[in-house]
Amino acid sequence: MEYKLDDNENLDDEILLECMAENKLQAFRKEFMKLHPYDQAQFFSKLELENRIKIYHYLSPTELATFFEVLDIDDAEYEEILAAMEPKYAADTLANMYTDNAVDVLNTLGKDQAASYLTIMEKESAHEIKGLLHYEESTAGSIMTTDFVAISQNQTVRSAMYILKYEAQKAETIYYVYVLDDESRLVGVLSLRDLIINSDDTMISEIMYNRIISISVGADQEDAARQMRDYDLLALPVVDFQNHLLGIITFDDIIDVIDEEASDDYSKLAGVSDMDTMDKSPFTAAKKRLPWLIILLFLGMFTASLIGRFEDTLSKVSILAVFIPLIAGMAGNSGTQSLAVAVRGLATGELQEMSKMKLIMREAGTGLITGSICGVLVSVVVYVWKGELFLGFLVGISILASLFVATLAGSLVPLLMEKLKIDPAVASGPFITTMNDITSILIYFGLATMFMSYLVH
Amino acid sequence: MEYKLDDNENLDDEILLECMAENKLQAFRKEFMKLHPYDQAQFFSKLELENRIKIYHYLSPTELATFFEVLDIDDAEYEEILAAMEPKYAADTLANMYTDNAVDVLNTLGKDQAASYLTIMEKESAHEIKGLLHYEESTAGSIMTTDFVAISQNQTVRSAMYILKYEAQKAETIYYVYVLDDESRLVGVLSLRDLIINSDDTMISEIMYNRIISISVGADQEDAARQMRDYDLLALPVVDFQNHLLGIITFDDIIDVIDEEASDDYSKLAGVSDMDTMDKSPFTAAKKRLPWLIILLFLGMFTASLIGRFEDTLSKVSILAVFIPLIAGMAGNSGTQSLAVAVRGLATGELQEMSKMKLIMREAGTGLITGSICGVLVSVVVYVWKGELFLGFLVGISILASLFVATLAGSLVPLLMEKLKIDPAVASGPFITTMNDITSILIYFGLATMFMSYLVH
Repeated sequence: MEYKLDDNENLDDEILLECMAENKLQAFRKEFMKLHPYDQAQFFSKLELENRIKIYHYLSPTELATFFEVLDIDDAEYEEILAAMEPKYAADTLANMYTDNAVDVLNTLGKDQAASYLTIMEKESAHEIKGLLHYEESTAGSIMTTDFVAISQNQTVRSAMYILKYEAQKAETIYYVYVLDDESRLVGVLSLRDLIINSDDTMISEIMYNRIISISVGADQEDAARQMRDYDLLALPVVDFQNHLLGIITFDDIIDVIDEEASDDYSKLAGVSDMDTMDKSPFTAAKKRLPWLIILLFLGMFTASLIGRFEDTLSKVSILAVFIPLIAGMAGNSGTQSLAVAVRGLATGELQEMSKMKLIMREAGTGLITGSICGVLVSVVVYVWKGELFLGFLVGISILASLFVATLAGSLVPLLMEKLKIDPAVASGPFITTMNDITSILIYFGLATMFMSYLVH
Repeated sequence: MEYKLDDNENLDDEILLECMAENKLQAFRKEFMKLHPYDQAQFFSKLELENRIKIYHYLSPTELATFFEVLDIDDAEYEEILAAMEPKYAADTLANMYTDNAVDVLNTLGKDQAASYLTIMEKESAHEIKGLLHYEESTAGSIMTTDFVAISQNQTVRSAMYILKYEAQKAETIYYVYVLDDESRLVGVLSLRDLIINSDDTMISEIMYNRIISISVGADQEDAARQMRDYDLLALPVVDFQNHLLGIITFDDIIDVIDEEASDDYSKLAGVSDMDTMDKSPFTAAKKRLPWLIILLFLGMFTASLIGRFEDTLSKVSILAVFIPLIAGMAGNSGTQSLAVAVRGLATGELQEMSKMKLIMREAGTGLITGSICGVLVSVVVYVWKGELFLGFLVGISILASLFVATLAGSLVPLLMEKLKIDPAVASGPFITTMNDITSILIYFGLATMFMSYLVH
């Protein structure tokens, strides 16, 4: 039987809903089990509470766990969902998830609720989960799982394959096998591919790879992602400072990390805090955007007060006001461009190849080139349009100076923040834009006031 | 022997360079072969031409191919590097790479050079590569490889494992095995895990998974990435419209796609074309940034000419100019926020869950809320600062209206572009900012002119 996934998705949903409405447990189970866990999760997340409770009666905790760990819902929803289950059922579901995912769910709960599930949970699972709960967010430890396969170097390929067959049910990946010494220290790694192509009697110590790529448990999850991407690894072992194997990070977690970091930088450039979760109401959306807008409002008032100081100049040559948005806008944009290049370069690690001094020199050069070209263009256009040579000259020079300063600031600010151990992406688009608004207006009105006599006829 | 990778990297490099300087071929090979392909590539990319040519004499094309495919260099450099090799050696290197990677390299070359390598290449490899060369960029076909493992459904697990052992040398992944019918149509899929946990005499047809998740060869690579991420797949089969298996996409390619797309959206929000390759000189950097800056320059001149129409109003109430950057800036920023949410939502597919009408309504609501709050704040601040009630009122109302329009436009524009089949990320930050500059200035000066009598004392 061939099956196209997308076309039948709605049909599947309808059949399942019908089974639920008519309380046909067996028919529901038969259809539901055919679905991929991701599709099961999609179906579940669309259900009303009443039907969700039905599902808990239809499925065992093990069956629920399969899709519960790929559920794509807001953190806040987990508490509600788990509260609707029998406590023992909820605890069993958590125990049947891969440990890293169970930890993720428990971290969304209040401390008391999490502790109560751990108390009624089967001891071994509770112990493993507790071991992971205390790792700090965004560290390698916080995304690792303890469901890996480990063997000893004095085994043969045959006995290793035997262990694998047994562990295959529970381990999150069986495609890498880790070799430990008597003190649980990581001494080698083997891929399943290596096991398959070597004969049964080969000793593990002969074929294992001992130049292990591993990461320390406290390292940043971004570093883990970078290593796995660079070395094309499906899993990365996580070790403590004595090289004991604590867990592994699997590739699905890394894809999430890469996605998350990219979204994060993007949100910051746009000045929206935490864009990852979809907002349902305009109130939650407004809550996320207002902090930036209000900061910018006060920065904008400061800009306004700066222009206010030049009111005298303005009242004499009111045409000056006409070019304010042009100059401020150009400076803001070239600053954002330069910022984005620096932030992205720092995030991907590409910048390390280039010395910081070199980057600054390059940005200064870039600002000079773009500034000169735009400056000349503007002078010509203003002269043709207004017929005023000096005004064109003034606007042109202001653009040149503003673009130069803005481009330089766009790279200096993130580098400085990185030095101060602040996430450079925080020096985001709106912030650098306003900063450049201010400098460009000072340049423009400063020059205009200095050369006032040439402007007034 | 235990080995920490990072600490010894420089030491490794030094030893290797020493071997090269003294022409110690065997010593070099011994050290070099210990390195992970990624580290080999890092070492190679730092070498001068002279030493690179030495490497071609030290290593076989197969050995070179191992790290050549993970080389992280600019597209333009491949031509130069390949030209420095013997043509036959270059062709053999390409033939020994995974087909998708060989295609990537050939696509960076001129047509004549690529064709000449294909001519001297071993026939079978040339044929496979040619088959992939004609797929359009960014399609599933363009990133797939033909190095997969396929079996028939009438085999047993034992015979499937036998085929796997044989194919393991060349296949890019052996962790998924594809089941084909007599006409090469995809009818099932099995993971290596399934093969390992089932007994040797089990028939493939009994254990294969027939709800196959596959993608059409012409589909967008982003769709492939999304499916692989959602379903946690290590490889995704690529089929034609008759469901013939043409190739597979492996997870390492998908990580590249996710990275690339995220960078791409980010660049567009910042108004920089193609940020992926590091610029070495300010001239190349300026070339990438100038197009946007010049477009914005002319849009800015248009804004200036709009303000010019209100010169009369301005000359009477010069204080109006003071608030131009504030109002334009706030509108620009709230537009960018709303745009970023919409673009990101479209990119991650999250938006499909929410109807478009709902999104627009939500954004309208958000604009109203943020606009009201910022508007009231501004009115109060202006009144306290300048002591002018009506001016405060005017600025406040302008902020409210501008934020409402900008927030709405920020979501409408990308949705419209998506409808017109234009990449919504193109409606980038700088563009929407300038658009909102214009509308906000029209609102502000329009209101000011209408109620002029209240402003002039």
